[in-house]
Amino acid sequence: MPPVDSTMPELRKDPIVGRWVIIAPDRLTRPQTIRDNGNGLAPDAYDPFLEGNEDATPPEILAYRAPHTEPNGPGWRVRVVPNKFPALRIEGELTNRGDGMYDVMSGIGAHEVIIECPHRETNLSRLAVDNIREVLWVYRDRLVDLKKDSRLIHGLIFKNKGALAGASLDHSHSQLIVNPIIPITIQEEMQGAEAYHRYRGRPIFADMIQQELATGTRVVIDSADFLVFCPYASRFPFETWIVPKNHTSHFENISRQGIDEMGVVLKQTLQKLELALDDPPYNYVIHSSPFDVQEVRHYCWHLEIFPKLTRVAGFEWGSGFYINPIAPEDAARFLRETEVE
Amino acid sequence: MPPVDSTMPELRKDPIVGRWVIIAPDRLTRPQTIRDNGNGLAPDAYDPFLEGNEDATPPEILAYRAPHTEPNGPGWRVRVVPNKFPALRIEGELTNRGDGMYDVMSGIGAHEVIIECPHRETNLSRLAVDNIREVLWVYRDRLVDLKKDSRLIHGLIFKNKGALAGASLDHSHSQLIVNPIIPITIQEEMQGAEAYHRYRGRPIFADMIQQELATGTRVVIDSADFLVFCPYASRFPFETWIVPKNHTSHFENISRQGIDEMGVVLKQTLQKLELALDDPPYNYVIHSSPFDVQEVRHYCWHLEIFPKLTRVAGFEWGSGFYINPIAPEDAARFLRETEVE
Repeated sequence: MPPVDSTMPELRKDPIVGRWVIIAPDRLTRPQTIRDNGNGLAPDAYDPFLEGNEDATPPEILAYRAPHTEPNGPGWRVRVVPNKFPALRIEGELTNRGDGMYDVMSGIGAHEVIIECPHRETNLSRLAVDNIREVLWVYRDRLVDLKKDSRLIHGLIFKNKGALAGASLDHSHSQLIVNPIIPITIQEEMQGAEAYHRYRGRPIFADMIQQELATGTRVVIDSADFLVFCPYASRFPFETWIVPKNHTSHFENISRQGIDEMGVVLKQTLQKLELALDDPPYNYVIHSSPFDVQEVRHYCWHLEIFPKLTRVAGFEWGSGFYINPIAPEDAARFLRETEVE
Repeated sequence: MPPVDSTMPELRKDPIVGRWVIIAPDRLTRPQTIRDNGNGLAPDAYDPFLEGNEDATPPEILAYRAPHTEPNGPGWRVRVVPNKFPALRIEGELTNRGDGMYDVMSGIGAHEVIIECPHRETNLSRLAVDNIREVLWVYRDRLVDLKKDSRLIHGLIFKNKGALAGASLDHSHSQLIVNPIIPITIQEEMQGAEAYHRYRGRPIFADMIQQELATGTRVVIDSADFLVFCPYASRFPFETWIVPKNHTSHFENISRQGIDEMGVVLKQTLQKLELALDDPPYNYVIHSSPFDVQEVRHYCWHLEIFPKLTRVAGFEWGSGFYINPIAPEDAARFLRETEVE
């Protein structure tokens, strides 16, 4: 699927609700090619993310490597490359202009792929804890680096696991999209959290952690530094959040100890979901504060996981209105009772 | 899939962004049963919506029938029945209470199915225009009727077409969910439209129609009373909106002439999408003002159609952040050039 049109991607703003959307029209050619035939990924297909196939990807941006190994050759443990079909481009000037009543920006930003292991493994949860910790370090390092670019104000780290969750390759990987705008979900969370803080005088995530611990019914894992739970108003069955107890607004400010523990907690959470739900497709997204604010009291970064279990998601897709057939208390109990190493 | 638990459904509010979610825990039994095996609908399966199979559904709420035919027997053209697995229940008291820091309401409301034709037809677009008009009349009649219930303040009419869009039966049908709350999408649109009106002194939908007509590149159909176009900041490829030019806030206040024309316009729009995209799964949703406000100047009801073309929707699902690989101008041109009767 090579780019056939070098049109610069654009960020366009919905004038009614203020949602920015990336229009990246050179990612595909003909409308028919985007019809989805329902097939999964071929497990025997060529794997461009395999150690030894480094020339199948654009040159690496970052890699954690064994000493004395060369960039873009074997010897790495976690590797970051530009997305071959980027939704945004890092080169160019950031322009922001009106188009009649509409607003449009040049699609400046970064779209990177984090290859989580050198061998062909589909599940992050099966990697060693130290490997998962290095994946988290890479997330952090890339955010810290891209934050220096004053054109960019928000970084979204996410993972699509499985074809039904949008993955086009089965080799375990995540993605990073760094934007000159704040995604509407993050913006709404920041605003909601700020309003709560103004009204109650306490951070909402701290109150949530306190109530979840007191109630206990929605808790999946309670570790020293993290609470894993199914949120009260879960949109999807088995929606699961990992929230740090020390309440910091920016993921990239995570401590060494935080990453050490998060490696364990993330592995266990994914293992539980995979065991309980028979290796489901899933997405996870790290919600974190924009680059252009310093530490804020009212917001707390966190990771949201959505197993992709039902097609009942039909109309929720565009309507933003959700019907969840599994109570979060039932999902949490089920996950708590699923024993993992 | 019979209900195994008679727990009342609940409406729960996300404390951060204020989004209400329906938790309807009796719709399914075990977590495993909600795994989606990727199969479509069996075209030879028993059809509970067929004329003659009226006893396969709960008793009808409304039907347009031939004279002298009996309720719940043959002779109908369009028929409305309660959803057999309702997300909300019409019986009971509407309670609204705190649950610590959270808010919860009893899941009072209506969840109905509109069976669009007596014979087995999968595509609304293949029905005669008069049949489609009667479907629209039924939408209107049900909203007008449910509006009398002072516990309920918003009605969402939507269609899931095809298994990939969430349909569990292939016989052409739509659904109606009437809520004691306003879905967050509608609330955000109302707020955004009001802010625009305050600032510019003009309704946003009127400005949009004017600019779309002046530009022309995103227009699909321009009829006397409706504009069909691909919105400037389309979230999905081939997202298409049908907006009335006379700018009314409530769908249920549509005129006789409006329905006459909308029948034609909806049929043509769906025919174009189906011809251009090879009969894709799709969802449509009617966005309309809440029951508890009279006609408002700033908002305009409209119908949004989302063909379900890509699985690239992976992480957009939960993140609210969209990457659209097809420019709306390209989609609109393609649809304009697709000739239908």
